[in-house]
Amino acid sequence: MAYTLGMDYGTNSVRALVVDCRDGSELATSVVNYPGGNQGILLDPLDHHLARQHPGDYLFGLEKSVVEALAQAAKHPGFSADQVIGIGVDATGSSPIPVDEKNVPLALFDRWKNVLAAQCWLWKDHTSHREAAEITRIAAQHRPHFIAKCGNTYSSEWFWSKIWHCLKTAPEVFDAAYSWVELTDFIPAVLAGVSDPKAVMRGICAAGHKALYAEDWGGLPDKDFLAMLDPKLAGLRDRLYETAHDATKAAGTLCPQWAAKLGLPAGIPIAIGEMDVHYGAIGSGVEEGVLVKAMGTSTCDCSVVRADKPVADIPGICGIVKGAILPGYYGIEAGQSAVGDIFKWWVEVVCEGDGALHARLTQEAAAQKPGGSGLLALDWNNGNRTILVDPMLTGAILGQTLHTTRADIYRALIEATAFGARAIIERIKDYGVSINRVVCCGGIAEKNAFLMQIYADVTGCTMQVSGSAQACALGAAVAAAVLAGPARGGYADFPSAQKAMTSIKPICYTPKPQNQALYDQLYALYRQLHDAFGGVNKSADLSGVMKKLIALKQGAN
Amino acid sequence: MAYTLGMDYGTNSVRALVVDCRDGSELATSVVNYPGGNQGILLDPLDHHLARQHPGDYLFGLEKSVVEALAQAAKHPGFSADQVIGIGVDATGSSPIPVDEKNVPLALFDRWKNVLAAQCWLWKDHTSHREAAEITRIAAQHRPHFIAKCGNTYSSEWFWSKIWHCLKTAPEVFDAAYSWVELTDFIPAVLAGVSDPKAVMRGICAAGHKALYAEDWGGLPDKDFLAMLDPKLAGLRDRLYETAHDATKAAGTLCPQWAAKLGLPAGIPIAIGEMDVHYGAIGSGVEEGVLVKAMGTSTCDCSVVRADKPVADIPGICGIVKGAILPGYYGIEAGQSAVGDIFKWWVEVVCEGDGALHARLTQEAAAQKPGGSGLLALDWNNGNRTILVDPMLTGAILGQTLHTTRADIYRALIEATAFGARAIIERIKDYGVSINRVVCCGGIAEKNAFLMQIYADVTGCTMQVSGSAQACALGAAVAAAVLAGPARGGYADFPSAQKAMTSIKPICYTPKPQNQALYDQLYALYRQLHDAFGGVNKSADLSGVMKKLIALKQGAN
Repeated sequence: MAYTLGMDYGTNSVRALVVDCRDGSELATSVVNYPGGNQGILLDPLDHHLARQHPGDYLFGLEKSVVEALAQAAKHPGFSADQVIGIGVDATGSSPIPVDEKNVPLALFDRWKNVLAAQCWLWKDHTSHREAAEITRIAAQHRPHFIAKCGNTYSSEWFWSKIWHCLKTAPEVFDAAYSWVELTDFIPAVLAGVSDPKAVMRGICAAGHKALYAEDWGGLPDKDFLAMLDPKLAGLRDRLYETAHDATKAAGTLCPQWAAKLGLPAGIPIAIGEMDVHYGAIGSGVEEGVLVKAMGTSTCDCSVVRADKPVADIPGICGIVKGAILPGYYGIEAGQSAVGDIFKWWVEVVCEGDGALHARLTQEAAAQKPGGSGLLALDWNNGNRTILVDPMLTGAILGQTLHTTRADIYRALIEATAFGARAIIERIKDYGVSINRVVCCGGIAEKNAFLMQIYADVTGCTMQVSGSAQACALGAAVAAAVLAGPARGGYADFPSAQKAMTSIKPICYTPKPQNQALYDQLYALYRQLHDAFGGVNKSADLSGVMKKLIALKQGAN
Repeated sequence: MAYTLGMDYGTNSVRALVVDCRDGSELATSVVNYPGGNQGILLDPLDHHLARQHPGDYLFGLEKSVVEALAQAAKHPGFSADQVIGIGVDATGSSPIPVDEKNVPLALFDRWKNVLAAQCWLWKDHTSHREAAEITRIAAQHRPHFIAKCGNTYSSEWFWSKIWHCLKTAPEVFDAAYSWVELTDFIPAVLAGVSDPKAVMRGICAAGHKALYAEDWGGLPDKDFLAMLDPKLAGLRDRLYETAHDATKAAGTLCPQWAAKLGLPAGIPIAIGEMDVHYGAIGSGVEEGVLVKAMGTSTCDCSVVRADKPVADIPGICGIVKGAILPGYYGIEAGQSAVGDIFKWWVEVVCEGDGALHARLTQEAAAQKPGGSGLLALDWNNGNRTILVDPMLTGAILGQTLHTTRADIYRALIEATAFGARAIIERIKDYGVSINRVVCCGGIAEKNAFLMQIYADVTGCTMQVSGSAQACALGAAVAAAVLAGPARGGYADFPSAQKAMTSIKPICYTPKPQNQALYDQLYALYRQLHDAFGGVNKSADLSGVMKKLIALKQGAN
């Protein structure tokens, strides 16, 4: 009997999951909310772009969640903690933490504990939007290949934007920090007892997707480039890392100190850290030909292509990074910057309702046919991440009459996110990446059958649902099982581990041909608006859009 | 001492107003709701386009409202009913009634009283949309000049569409009807005791705006044209009328029978009937250079141009008819098909709120600056009547984020209607009609100071408010005073009567230059959307619209 532990550091809480290596069954799980701030997030009432997190909360949650999960697992006959053969960790990203020369976060010292810039800069912190635009501009001019793999736009959510913003606005923090470590790399290093930032094993996942790292150009961006931003950033490069690693490498082994704290055997391997959705893709059984959609407040789409073939740049796709998800494959990441958040906005902000209203609107909207409301929306309330890569786009709703209801609009918003999903799938396929199956994970995929059917009808893809409700933590546990290896009860490689430990739910959503035909027509109209407002088509004829919507409505009713 | 009586037949009720001819002061008023149907309207649960009204309700309301108003007026010392020197009547239109050869509405007979097609076809009945499209098509091919003065589109709300639809769907009613009389003409004829439809004095207002009547082509459409629709319509032409009249002509004098019923002197003149908003324009002091806006659920804009100069066709303007408002002038009518209805839709249908929510949203929206929400809307929830003349256009809202509130959208919808108003004003001015002042009447103008200031800021025009809250009835009373003439205590002409009897409220709304500058920029964006979706511009570059909205928002906040 062998078990692995998967740790998932989410936006508001951390989850520990104990997994049986034989079949991936989940023995025990514990979720610990970060105790600080507002739902774990430190905010600035004067700047709604700011989102930070206290690193102490991560350590508190690490110990508490693991101890609780192990205690729960111990109720199972046959389980004992010394059968745990490895640990995997995923986290949000890019979430960089300023640390001292011993890899201790500055915020753990009294001097810095209340300083916002000394905390972890959470992925959704957007204070660095000016720096992001400047990095995009300078890279476009001097290093266009740096941003060609990330849709030609560097994001305010990413590593260099945030550190540069810290340097500009809180230089005392920048100067006090010896180095910066991504949360995905930090937790494995803590467990491994690594006390030198340069010795922290860095994952290719965060490095490649967020920090402009690539083997092709010798790792991190060259110092000349960084000096164009600020000479101090060039100086920092020497205190970061030379090489980042895929999931074939261990981040280290469990150090005696943390082994004792957690009640686990010292010396077991700790997998390299990956971003949550990437381990989520593994936990959902990603392989070539499969698109995994992690569906929540926003959506992240992951796919892989074998690294022995060259892969083209795909315009408008967030990132194509070798080794980022599965070793031996290019990891392709795309996403929609708001999905569940748009429905939440409509129900809670505009309609001033709650969960009961979500249910009522779902019921009313489900009674309609495609095109039946005459409405069409653009899903850009939080910008467009893929395929336009433009955070300055906004939402739109079209086709209202004096009879349009809140349920009509609710459905139109769901359809708009499905059209956005289709645009991503089509773009990826257009560049030669095959997508034969779509596997969805996350709360929306589990709970919202109405939405899932619309996604199937709009995209023309059968929508499967990941067998685990904790796909990210499960993926981390899979990585740990691979690192531990077959001799200890793990696996020799990812395909065999995934085959044994991950699954698909029996339910799936199959496109209904009649709805597909209607949605093909609506999608054509969506693309007209998408291309016109997104700047793809600068001489658009939109004169027929409203009339075509009315014709579809008359046909549906 | 001399008084006139103004009768205003609205959509749900009729109003009688007793006016002092010296200064237009309103001695007494009585409103009677039509007793039948739903708020006075007969509906068909299977067809929401249908809206009819029982003619008996008009006669019931006539007697009751006048008797009540006179009783109320009699409380004023010095008033007696024999001092009433004339009666004026306005009504909704086109609202044609099928009558027998004695000018009695079919619906007053037992056989027809419950037959929907035998009732008055209320202005907002849209059952005839197919016939309207067919009339437009045939006229465009064979008689383009017929529709050139009504924006090149014949409406489903108008005379011939309705009668043709009756002929097609209820031929027994068509066959039983000797003739058809507009409500505006019917009530004056009743008061005058006219018992022959061919002897009914027809107003140029309804004839010219709704029935394709013009002196230029010999009155009503020729029989050859009507025969292209249906030979029976050509046959009907002989039983309608040869000539229609402006407000210099009387519809007749009060017959003894109705004089006795109402308690008024027999023989006093009855003014020619006009449509409500046209007499409303007179009651608001319309003259050359003045635009009168009647602002309610929808908006009607009226202006006049001296008939001794030629007036150009104005593309997209509902109607340009000689003598339709003031004698000796072309009457120009434009309008927005939904204004108050859009706010009502947002608050009541989408937000599921009531009057209190209107007040709350007004307060929240009033705290914002122009452009502050980043939103832009199109005011087409009920199509676009002017200047695109396209009922198949629909609403749009653009620029939403995850923080957009219901108040933001409420304000954007108000601004959208103001942009629509500006488009009309600019179109009229572009064709050489001067607009030096705007006088608003109706509930919105009276009650919504927040909206009125936005209209001033958006249009750049000072918005005045009509002195009377019953501008339509007052205008009818003015027409009666002119017909009665100075010898009986009335006036020699409209200008002198209007000068004495109409007024402007002391409050007015002056454009604020700072807001105007912002709204000029927003209006430019509105026109980009307007022209793109309205089909004016078939190669639109909309790529900058959302970004410009964000820039304006950032500037405002």
